[in-house]
Amino acid sequence: MSGGKKLGEFDIIRDYFMRQRVRREDVWLGIGDDGAVLDAPPGGQLVVAVDTLNADIHFPRGAPARAIGYRALAVNLSDLAAMGAEPAWATLVLSLQQADPSWLGDFAKGFFELAERHEIMLIGGDTIRGPLSVTVAAYGFVPSQQALLRSGAHAGDHVWVSGTLGDAAAGLDLLRAPGTRSEAETWLIERFLRPEPRVRLGMWLRQRATAVIDVSDGLVADLDKLATASGVGAVIQPDDLPISSALMNTASEQRCAEFASVGGDDYELCFTMPPTLRGEVESAAGELGCRLSRIGEITAERQLVARSVDGEQLLHSRGYDHFG
Amino acid sequence: MSGGKKLGEFDIIRDYFMRQRVRREDVWLGIGDDGAVLDAPPGGQLVVAVDTLNADIHFPRGAPARAIGYRALAVNLSDLAAMGAEPAWATLVLSLQQADPSWLGDFAKGFFELAERHEIMLIGGDTIRGPLSVTVAAYGFVPSQQALLRSGAHAGDHVWVSGTLGDAAAGLDLLRAPGTRSEAETWLIERFLRPEPRVRLGMWLRQRATAVIDVSDGLVADLDKLATASGVGAVIQPDDLPISSALMNTASEQRCAEFASVGGDDYELCFTMPPTLRGEVESAAGELGCRLSRIGEITAERQLVARSVDGEQLLHSRGYDHFG
Repeated sequence: MSGGKKLGEFDIIRDYFMRQRVRREDVWLGIGDDGAVLDAPPGGQLVVAVDTLNADIHFPRGAPARAIGYRALAVNLSDLAAMGAEPAWATLVLSLQQADPSWLGDFAKGFFELAERHEIMLIGGDTIRGPLSVTVAAYGFVPSQQALLRSGAHAGDHVWVSGTLGDAAAGLDLLRAPGTRSEAETWLIERFLRPEPRVRLGMWLRQRATAVIDVSDGLVADLDKLATASGVGAVIQPDDLPISSALMNTASEQRCAEFASVGGDDYELCFTMPPTLRGEVESAAGELGCRLSRIGEITAERQLVARSVDGEQLLHSRGYDHFG
Repeated sequence: MSGGKKLGEFDIIRDYFMRQRVRREDVWLGIGDDGAVLDAPPGGQLVVAVDTLNADIHFPRGAPARAIGYRALAVNLSDLAAMGAEPAWATLVLSLQQADPSWLGDFAKGFFELAERHEIMLIGGDTIRGPLSVTVAAYGFVPSQQALLRSGAHAGDHVWVSGTLGDAAAGLDLLRAPGTRSEAETWLIERFLRPEPRVRLGMWLRQRATAVIDVSDGLVADLDKLATASGVGAVIQPDDLPISSALMNTASEQRCAEFASVGGDDYELCFTMPPTLRGEVESAAGELGCRLSRIGEITAERQLVARSVDGEQLLHSRGYDHFG
């Protein structure tokens, strides 16, 4: 089906995706052949994460192209961060209805802005005609056997989360509703469009955290995955969930609690640590450039519980209604 | 946008994609965490190839699910073969309108049938709601600096191609037209649906071929890419293009020549070799289990020429009309 398969593919690749500033010595051969040829570092392991963002499913079709490019890489860097990996390379598959130069220019700007910040080199991909969709794979390195998994949490570990929760879900709601925005609302929308992958934090957590996951589907859902993988449960204090002042200025107290507990797309890290490391975490927050909040504790009972002054409530991973 | 994001994703992954037979020691952590953790072999280089197949663009929507699963992996293994790499791992992103168990079962059967044949382990991916689309990345190894590139062809090298050409393009035409099929027609359709990636041939070509590309967009288009990357040209003998008896039984002589020169999707390897290795290639065909045909010669003039008893004709990479 070659005739109509890749209209102008080579022009797109040349004009928008081969002009990157980052050059890496571990990329022996990059874009332009049938595959990339790479040198993985000796003594380390390779970490691979892949995620697709489909228009209208993962982002509104009309979202700024620059944000789509940024975000497609960011969500994958967040996965690398959750593994404790240092990013190195990325591949990009871009499915497009048509090749609009201004859209492509903005998309590439967003993608490479984040790539350059983390010294990531684009090593290959595919540009095809089809419904708007972006698939990025990110590649990183960890020292052997130091990758951070979901499965190492123990009863008694503290549960921590980076940054603030619920901003992206609130921002997405705002993005879908037209109108003028307050400064706080604009900030929340940015939190959805341009999440900050916690790469430095992830690397710092190596040999410290017992389990890590990134918060993409919402705190309750993702903590549930971590607890299930570890064969444990957790008690969290809803009052300790970190809420941004922008979110507090924009939503009611109850909506804030809902966004923070079940809203997705924040791409913060949720991790568990032995209580003995509490002081170390608290003093590292400044150096790591992000808030780190202790929100609960791992338990031997395989269930998620919210404990507040009003009492205890069982949490289920699907759901608004189950969280007060 | 977590709520509706990945309906039943975990069931799909567990039921269809975690039940693989292949286990590899170089996969330290596979499906199920935020990323896979892998050991690249010391002394080797990693080769990565990624391709997306969109419904109605790269395959008819109604194509058998088993063939879609097989083909999505096959086209990427063909890229690895063109680099001389030995396959090891794959990731799979599957975008689906709905989760139909029988479709998914067939898709997985096709994918793993080919994966098992090459000892490939599925290490991760993503399952999302959206228009039918399959993105596979394939990972393989080559001894350091032995990857086969498009760029090493020299004037005087012979041009070779594996298998037969034009079958897949003819098969796709047949697939689109309903009706009863002859045995030859069924075979041609299979050639489109289930291409045989030339993995063993690719590995055999290491340190022998000067340049390699796989024929996905059609011989003229792909040979043009190889010649451009090498800074050379080529003369080919149209009468020497390998045509299957199935194609000869199905199409006129002129259509056979068109399919073979500009039809895509065959996933054969086109490679260049010093003339001194001609005998070695000819005697290896049996051991490698595929026909190997010498179809022309690399020239210093940067153009593609078809030379037959009727004279010479310039070839252009786009097109039917330019090839007699």
